[in-house]
Amino acid sequence: MPSDREPFVVVGGDAAGLSAASKCRRESDREVVVYEKGSWVSYAHCGTPYFVKGEVDELTDLLSLSPDEVDERGIELCRNHEVLDVDTEARTVSVAGPDGEFEQPYGDLLVATGARALTSPVDGTDLDGAHTLHGLDSAAGIRAHLLDPDTDHLADVGGEAFVDRERVERYGAMDPPETVAIVGGGYVGIEMAEAFSTHQCDVHLFQRGAHVLPPFGEAVAERVEAELRERGVTLHLETEVAELTGSEGRVEHLVCTGGTELDTELALVGVGIQPNTELVADEPVGTGPGGAIVVDDHGRTGVDGVYAAGDCATMEHAVTGEPEWVPLGLTANRAGRAIGSTVAGDPEPVGTIAGTGVLKAFDCEAGRTGIIDPDRAREAGFDPVSETVTAGSRSGYYPGGSETDVTLVADRNSGLLLGGSIVGTDRAAIRVDILATAIEQGATVGELERTDLAYAPPFSPVWDPVLVGAKVLRGSVEAE
Amino acid sequence: MPSDREPFVVVGGDAAGLSAASKCRRESDREVVVYEKGSWVSYAHCGTPYFVKGEVDELTDLLSLSPDEVDERGIELCRNHEVLDVDTEARTVSVAGPDGEFEQPYGDLLVATGARALTSPVDGTDLDGAHTLHGLDSAAGIRAHLLDPDTDHLADVGGEAFVDRERVERYGAMDPPETVAIVGGGYVGIEMAEAFSTHQCDVHLFQRGAHVLPPFGEAVAERVEAELRERGVTLHLETEVAELTGSEGRVEHLVCTGGTELDTELALVGVGIQPNTELVADEPVGTGPGGAIVVDDHGRTGVDGVYAAGDCATMEHAVTGEPEWVPLGLTANRAGRAIGSTVAGDPEPVGTIAGTGVLKAFDCEAGRTGIIDPDRAREAGFDPVSETVTAGSRSGYYPGGSETDVTLVADRNSGLLLGGSIVGTDRAAIRVDILATAIEQGATVGELERTDLAYAPPFSPVWDPVLVGAKVLRGSVEAE
Repeated sequence: MPSDREPFVVVGGDAAGLSAASKCRRESDREVVVYEKGSWVSYAHCGTPYFVKGEVDELTDLLSLSPDEVDERGIELCRNHEVLDVDTEARTVSVAGPDGEFEQPYGDLLVATGARALTSPVDGTDLDGAHTLHGLDSAAGIRAHLLDPDTDHLADVGGEAFVDRERVERYGAMDPPETVAIVGGGYVGIEMAEAFSTHQCDVHLFQRGAHVLPPFGEAVAERVEAELRERGVTLHLETEVAELTGSEGRVEHLVCTGGTELDTELALVGVGIQPNTELVADEPVGTGPGGAIVVDDHGRTGVDGVYAAGDCATMEHAVTGEPEWVPLGLTANRAGRAIGSTVAGDPEPVGTIAGTGVLKAFDCEAGRTGIIDPDRAREAGFDPVSETVTAGSRSGYYPGGSETDVTLVADRNSGLLLGGSIVGTDRAAIRVDILATAIEQGATVGELERTDLAYAPPFSPVWDPVLVGAKVLRGSVEAE
Repeated sequence: MPSDREPFVVVGGDAAGLSAASKCRRESDREVVVYEKGSWVSYAHCGTPYFVKGEVDELTDLLSLSPDEVDERGIELCRNHEVLDVDTEARTVSVAGPDGEFEQPYGDLLVATGARALTSPVDGTDLDGAHTLHGLDSAAGIRAHLLDPDTDHLADVGGEAFVDRERVERYGAMDPPETVAIVGGGYVGIEMAEAFSTHQCDVHLFQRGAHVLPPFGEAVAERVEAELRERGVTLHLETEVAELTGSEGRVEHLVCTGGTELDTELALVGVGIQPNTELVADEPVGTGPGGAIVVDDHGRTGVDGVYAAGDCATMEHAVTGEPEWVPLGLTANRAGRAIGSTVAGDPEPVGTIAGTGVLKAFDCEAGRTGIIDPDRAREAGFDPVSETVTAGSRSGYYPGGSETDVTLVADRNSGLLLGGSIVGTDRAAIRVDILATAIEQGATVGELERTDLAYAPPFSPVWDPVLVGAKVLRGSVEAE
């Protein structure tokens, strides 16, 4: 085992990588080197739809840390440096930077390479006007595309020191689209439907399955779909997009396998993401769900001294105890921080995930956690029972409340709470934290029902919608 | 043991009593008789400040069930019937109704007699213009007092079939007060400060202690006090009110022990409530904190066939396991329902309480749960460590967030989470449900820190304020 005087080398300068680097520096005087392939570091990916929408002024507002702040933490940050290869015997990585290639020795290595947008099986995504939303440069390109060509686009998007100027200027020169097609009804698709609508576009959303937001379940999907339609978004459900076509290198049409066509000047293709695991593809590192790198409770890959965290890695699921790939921001930050502590000499578990996610769609808000899909629950060895209730978010006599739909899933035998979702317009999303806490604690649905939740007319009825859901589900669990 | 064919008799027709009666009728064909001393039943006490404020239109909007709906459930409801005495040997109660006194046999008896407002040690509370807020008639009187004498007060307050007409007409005839004094800075005092301000009164709030809202702790109190002052409420802290004085039977002045005086035409005295336990005062029934009736995990008093629930009874505290008196709405409803199930033949525990409470003060909202006061924690055998953090409620770049103060308390030895409070303006109060769930599940502060809470810019930063608080507190717990 090499000395821990060898540097802690981090591949990837985003949430997981910089959380680990920062924590390690704070807790030790170990040398820390971060290689980032691009020019941006430590940015809030989840904020990009709101930047496109215009609620966030500039790209740089989305940075958690500027490169200068990273420097001040004593981290050696090398932007525009790609790590090409790793030699886990010699404990070195090969790095390609602006001044050529070199070998970097490491004591511990963190693979925090993130994920990339998937566009297949849609053809024609190389046309101008076909966007993905992954990273700040793509967000800058979309916003530039939406603005009037007379705008000073570089000033508008901000972040001139880092941004892909060519992309911003190219899209900025185009006329704003009248019709926008969104391919994929996941988080990004829904959030971007709101963003495009704010720019007065005619928005069409295409989803291959029967409903948007599959991980949230049907009760949430139906409310969100109703909200989207009410706001003028045209939904094309059970509709598979085959290709984008155009002329002179520009998107002009969208064609579906079933024959549906749409004239459109901007297509956002967000059919999924996939983990960037190429760096360790030849190493004896296991991959799990989604092809992500499997790690143990301390983020170790099984190869001595090699850790993985963030969107390229799995985490242990709180309900199943199995590796699960849920590429979300808190997971990356938490795992990175724990690994930073571990390599600094103070081992800290990376924790488990419940797969908690929340989403805003215009005035509608939704949250989900745990296992909602009955097939997933059965695969994990449970006998799922599910109930959906509709209850008011406030006392009926108090103004401003909203019908809130709560779906809860429990195991028939043990009563264990497996998952749930909440959707409504009044403090609905944040209530899913109640379920996430209960699930991480291994609560039964009966225990949830007896939990002393808050009650005051402006915030909740006597029986919070969560308690109403628990009551009904407990009845069903015990009845069968 | 008498037959369960003998009726289930309930004393008190509010939350606990009618929850028990309804549940028993739903689950069995047992005869159920409810005696209610007053003319109102099943009303939302917590809604009365919003009725006075005018956000709730009519008194009847605050009824969960009308007497007719109670009838439809097959419950024999006797309003204006006072239960004077109980003979637990003979299993009978003596009842005084409009047509005289009679004996009522019971198989099981539920004492759900509630609590009453305390006005001592303030003298002069018998003057007109000195109000308490306890029950719908007092709320109607205050609202009538606030309105112009030309108003049709009876029509305005609504509920003509039940309301104390004399009281409404007497206060309605008075000129609306220019200056209002609130004596006591608890829940009701704070909520009523908002209500009176809405009616353009000059509001003065007197609190004997150093801060309002003692159960919420200092961090909440300071934010709420700042909000009250900003909204024009004059706070008189560490100021003890001695008496109200006046002439011709009307309040005109308020006098404090320290010499402070105030001219006022309306004084709301809310220095506390006390449980109504007189009915069982001569029975071998234990009393605990606050003088409330001690019950076991099924709401039993220890006297065969006699149960107690709601504001007159204790509940087991989730942290200490000891009886605690926290007279709140959900507790009453839940305990009542469980007892209703038990006397119907399906025993159900009444559950525990965490003492969760939430409050709105203008735009500020606050929640508390568990044990916050360090002396209380030490009395219960813990070695409390406490931290307060201030963190944003949303990602910093997303508009509409609020500085949120989270206070968490844990035991130094075990790391067990004991209690906490949250205050802010953006979804702050409802977040206390996370803490309540964690506490009822016996979570440690480290487990709370690793909980997979929701993150999306409109709702939460990557690290929710609760997680920031847990991180800091875990550091302190482990450091010492």
